[in-house]
Amino acid sequence: MGDLRGNCLMGQSGGPTAVINASICGVIQEVLRHPEIEQIYGAQHGILGVLQEDLIDLRQEDPEEIELLKCTPAAALGSIRHKLPDVGEDSAEYERVLQVFAAHNIRYFFYAGGNDSMDTIAKVSAYADAQGYELRAIGIPKTVDNDLAGIDHCPGYGSVAKHIAAVTMGVGLDMMSVHLTDPVVILEVMGRNAGWMTASAALARRREGDAPNLIYVPEAPWQRERFLEDVRRSHARHGWCFVAVSVGAKDETGEYIATQKGEFAKDVFGHVQLGGVGFFLENLVRDEVGLKTRLIRMGPAERVAMHFGSLTDRDEAYDLGAFAVRSAREGVTAKMASLERTSNDPYRCELTLSDLAIVANEEKLIPRQWLNEAGNDVTPELLEYARPLIQGEVATPIEDGLPRYARLREAPVENKLSPWRPAD
Amino acid sequence: MGDLRGNCLMGQSGGPTAVINASICGVIQEVLRHPEIEQIYGAQHGILGVLQEDLIDLRQEDPEEIELLKCTPAAALGSIRHKLPDVGEDSAEYERVLQVFAAHNIRYFFYAGGNDSMDTIAKVSAYADAQGYELRAIGIPKTVDNDLAGIDHCPGYGSVAKHIAAVTMGVGLDMMSVHLTDPVVILEVMGRNAGWMTASAALARRREGDAPNLIYVPEAPWQRERFLEDVRRSHARHGWCFVAVSVGAKDETGEYIATQKGEFAKDVFGHVQLGGVGFFLENLVRDEVGLKTRLIRMGPAERVAMHFGSLTDRDEAYDLGAFAVRSAREGVTAKMASLERTSNDPYRCELTLSDLAIVANEEKLIPRQWLNEAGNDVTPELLEYARPLIQGEVATPIEDGLPRYARLREAPVENKLSPWRPAD
Repeated sequence: MGDLRGNCLMGQSGGPTAVINASICGVIQEVLRHPEIEQIYGAQHGILGVLQEDLIDLRQEDPEEIELLKCTPAAALGSIRHKLPDVGEDSAEYERVLQVFAAHNIRYFFYAGGNDSMDTIAKVSAYADAQGYELRAIGIPKTVDNDLAGIDHCPGYGSVAKHIAAVTMGVGLDMMSVHLTDPVVILEVMGRNAGWMTASAALARRREGDAPNLIYVPEAPWQRERFLEDVRRSHARHGWCFVAVSVGAKDETGEYIATQKGEFAKDVFGHVQLGGVGFFLENLVRDEVGLKTRLIRMGPAERVAMHFGSLTDRDEAYDLGAFAVRSAREGVTAKMASLERTSNDPYRCELTLSDLAIVANEEKLIPRQWLNEAGNDVTPELLEYARPLIQGEVATPIEDGLPRYARLREAPVENKLSPWRPAD
Repeated sequence: MGDLRGNCLMGQSGGPTAVINASICGVIQEVLRHPEIEQIYGAQHGILGVLQEDLIDLRQEDPEEIELLKCTPAAALGSIRHKLPDVGEDSAEYERVLQVFAAHNIRYFFYAGGNDSMDTIAKVSAYADAQGYELRAIGIPKTVDNDLAGIDHCPGYGSVAKHIAAVTMGVGLDMMSVHLTDPVVILEVMGRNAGWMTASAALARRREGDAPNLIYVPEAPWQRERFLEDVRRSHARHGWCFVAVSVGAKDETGEYIATQKGEFAKDVFGHVQLGGVGFFLENLVRDEVGLKTRLIRMGPAERVAMHFGSLTDRDEAYDLGAFAVRSAREGVTAKMASLERTSNDPYRCELTLSDLAIVANEEKLIPRQWLNEAGNDVTPELLEYARPLIQGEVATPIEDGLPRYARLREAPVENKLSPWRPAD
């Protein structure tokens, strides 16, 4: 099983995280310990780079730059959102992928991403198998949303949770300083269906009254009058109110609250969902409660804060990459490298393998019992789950006052096929 | 001159910064070296705390917590926006301030803030002098905006500049990773009249094409068609476009671009200035250039990032606090502790004293020649000025994965006067 010789290819897909490059570093540095794996290629912009034969030669990179990937946010190989069609519907893309693999003798394929990426690996593996092409393909999980099934928690989440908690702590102090004039803050956090990121703001609390005072996630329905009452009560009690809300918070009908009909539904050009949920709530509080409100929307800035990354998260991301390589060398294919928590205090996670189908088809939401009954806060169970994931700080090298992130040379691999022309 | 015995009082005013508490720490730790200064009081919420006789006894704080103020963002004593009336118009507030000072034998008054705070010190000093009350009052500068005159640069600016540059660098990498699907980012930065904060994003650049690609500040007029052309050109050249823009960016008529008439001027309730400039530009790019655009609005999160604070900034903030105390002990009054840059390479600043009237009445904007002709970028002069200010990192203590910020006991000082009742 372990004697498959050939080259390896890796790629990244979906929204970047602070530690997805650490996984790539883990893959590369582990591959270097296995001489049977000869060339080390990266696909630029994930599966699109495979289809376009847009590969770079990672053996030509400076090992110091590869090492710097351990503390470099975003996707150094470039990312993409591309879901392969079902092979029964359209096999052209699969044929092309296999042509590229065969042309470059790719026998090891490592793909870091979320559920769509695991779907890609499952489909490519099955197709290769059906065509009798020997391939070991392993998925490496990443997502800031923490919504992957088949894994205790997802690499990328710990760092974004740490960052959101640190911002909440700092802005909370700021708000307490200025609450006589600016009493309300709305922190809008990414997350369409899963509220894990928003919930992590709760890690910031140290004392009664600390931010965040209210938390709204998609898993618990939001109700307008109750929300206004929540804000009024928090303000009356503390003198301030810090609200953390998911982009995808929904009302009782399951509709996103940012698209509430009749209110902010359209701008003068007729666009809907004008400024998103944070903007909607900012205006609602100002108009209905009459308090000055500040909106914070970090958007992609949430997921790149490697200047305050979680060491636990980073190390797990790296280990999963290295483990994917070791597993493939031992003959494993069509699996996702995964984490199983075996102890919470002391925190301990073991490396395991998960079924791709579970990861591809399920979505892990916050269990309802980890949210309070009123649907405006988390319970201690959620904090116990999340707190170990934010421990430790990544020692990012600094140059001229700012992080020194990796810069790859991106030496192109010579093309062996004619350019790819999609059917349509 | 140096033999004035009595108590000292300090306060904070205006928007907080990452290092305004470091100045307070500098005041307290320096006062402890001068036994002639007996009690050490803090006014809660600045001059409002003086008027309301809402004072806390800082000698009762744990010295370790005082030390932690060195790396704690926001205003630990509470801040306020309150401009004293002209004494000729209404002297009631001045009388009250002097009553509180006399009741607590306050002979040393240190006030950290921006131009309004320097105005407060000037007015209180003059009134005390006119009434024959011996008082040494010194201002300690702070503002993230860096718009104070009479000082080379303002404490608070270096940390926010470092933070904005770090976010720009991280989000820039993120955008380059995902530019095939999400090519444009708008970073909205605080700053109504001065663009210093927005300009600091330029410190993030390491290579051609790096974020930020375009910078718009209030000091150079913004023009709609030129902006759209700038975005199209950047996207055509690099494949992406990162725009940093000041909240207060203005068009050629001097009007804020966020309130452009006829477009996004009003929501369905008739409110103007709906989502601010970032939101306006996000929609403009999406509609007119047809590119997917993400808006980042950090708001108060910009100024509290002590998890990545500038050591240079922090040390200067501390030194200015300590210098204010030493100056007062030597008999100085009605001045602002200030910084004069004597060398840029190596960077060196000396502690000096500035005239309060200059600071109170002028506003330091970016010189037009530090912006390029097209008004969409900064020149190397600005980078040379700003780069020394972001050097070094504050080693914030960490507890349970997050910064361990100071928590004051806030022991109240016994009131000696009847409650303050404002005239109206």
